[in-house]
Amino acid sequence: MNISVMTLFPHMIESYMSESIMKRAIEKDIISVKIYNIRDFSENKHKKVDDYPFGGGAGMVMTPQPIYSTFDKVIEDMGLDMSTKPKLIYLSPKGRTFDQEYAKELSKEENLVFLCGHYEGIDQRIIDSIVSDEFSIGDYVLTGGELPAMVMIDSISRLIPGVLGTNESFEDESFENDLLEYPHYTRPRTFNGMDVPDVIISGNHKKIDEWRLNESKKITQERRPDLWKKYKNREK
Amino acid sequence: MNISVMTLFPHMIESYMSESIMKRAIEKDIISVKIYNIRDFSENKHKKVDDYPFGGGAGMVMTPQPIYSTFDKVIEDMGLDMSTKPKLIYLSPKGRTFDQEYAKELSKEENLVFLCGHYEGIDQRIIDSIVSDEFSIGDYVLTGGELPAMVMIDSISRLIPGVLGTNESFEDESFENDLLEYPHYTRPRTFNGMDVPDVIISGNHKKIDEWRLNESKKITQERRPDLWKKYKNREK
Repeated sequence: MNISVMTLFPHMIESYMSESIMKRAIEKDIISVKIYNIRDFSENKHKKVDDYPFGGGAGMVMTPQPIYSTFDKVIEDMGLDMSTKPKLIYLSPKGRTFDQEYAKELSKEENLVFLCGHYEGIDQRIIDSIVSDEFSIGDYVLTGGELPAMVMIDSISRLIPGVLGTNESFEDESFENDLLEYPHYTRPRTFNGMDVPDVIISGNHKKIDEWRLNESKKITQERRPDLWKKYKNREK
Repeated sequence: MNISVMTLFPHMIESYMSESIMKRAIEKDIISVKIYNIRDFSENKHKKVDDYPFGGGAGMVMTPQPIYSTFDKVIEDMGLDMSTKPKLIYLSPKGRTFDQEYAKELSKEENLVFLCGHYEGIDQRIIDSIVSDEFSIGDYVLTGGELPAMVMIDSISRLIPGVLGTNESFEDESFENDLLEYPHYTRPRTFNGMDVPDVIISGNHKKIDEWRLNESKKITQERRPDLWKKYKNREK
C-alpha cells in the first residue's frame, strides 16, 4: 500500500513512522509512506497557508490553493491524475465515525492519501472538489488532523497481511464480534497477594473458553450497551 | 497540570511533545510532562516485560511487576503515595468510550497518569489494583496505547485555560452543542471556478448565523443520526 500524508507538521508524522509497526512494514516493503509539507506548495510569497474566515468567527481557515497544489503533486508522484485519483481522506470532527469495519475496507486500497487540517479547518471547496472521505476518529476535538491520521494509518496497516508478526494476531480482538475482549493474565500466578483465577490455570480449555466468553459478555453489557445490543441482534 | 506517561516506546511520545500545542503549553509552564519507560523498571535480568497468557491464546501479555514498579516511581516523583494516588488511565479497546465530556472533566485534574499497553494487553491484576479509568478512543484496534494517550492528552490539554492562543477558540466547535460544525470558507472568493456562497460574503450577520446553523443541522442529520437525536431531545 502507498500512503501519502499532507500536513503542516511533517515532523510529527515522520517520528511516528520511524517507530512502532510502521517501521517494520516500511522495511518489509509492504507499505510505503510519503509525507508532504503543505506549506512548501503555497504560492503566497510569505508561504502563508491560512486566512480569516469569510462571514466572521474565531480562528483561521486553511486556504484552498496550497492543499490543491500539494494533492496535485501527490497524485503525480503516484503516476496518477485527477481522473484516476486515489482516495483522499480528510480528518475532521464532522466526518463519519471511523471504526474497525472501515479499517478493514480501507486496508484493501492500493493508494491512500490523508489530509491533516489545522486551525478552524479547511476551505469547504477543497472538501467539495477533491476529498473523497471525511472521517472523525471520535467525539472529541483535537488541535489538528495529525494524530487522527496516525490512528487511522496504524489501525489500517496492521490489517494488511504480513505487517503483524505471526505471534501477534487479530483473533478474539475487541470489536471483531461486537464483544469487548476478556481479561488477560500472565505470570506470576500470585502478584502482590492477587491470584490468577483458578479456571485460567485449570488446563481445561473448554472451561477456559466458556469463562472468557462470559467475561466478554459481562464487560460488554456493563460498559457498552450499544455494542451489546448489536451482539444480541446478531445472535437471533 | 502534571501529566506522566508510562510506555514501552518513550520516543513516540517525546517527539509529539516537542511539537504542536504541547510544546507551547510546556514552555508556558501550564503543563508538565514526564515520560517513563516501563522496561527500565523490570526486575527481570533480561528486562523482560511480557509473557505468554495463562489459559492459552495468541500474543503476549504485559507482566504486572514492571508496570506496578513504574507507577510506584511516578507517584513518588509527584510527592504522592498509594493512598493519595492520582488518576491512572489505561488505554484499551475495552474501556469506556472517551468523548468531549470526559475531556472537559479530566481537564480539571491536577495530576494525570497514562498507561500505554502493548501486545495483547496487560495483566488484569494491574487494572484491578491500580488503574482508575479504562478508556477507549474509538471502535477500532491499534497496535498500542501510545497514539490513544496522545489523542487524550491533546484534547484535554487544549481545554486548559491559557493553552490555546486568544485567536484560537473552542466556541462553535463540533460536539459543543451536539451539532457538527458548519462549512468554512476563506479567500479567494473564487477558486478553480468555485465561488464562496453569496450569503457568507453578504455582511448580514443574522443571515450568516442562520445559514451556518442550518448547515450544521443538515450535516449532523445526514452523518450522525445519533447526535441529531440528542440535539432534538435537548431542544424540547
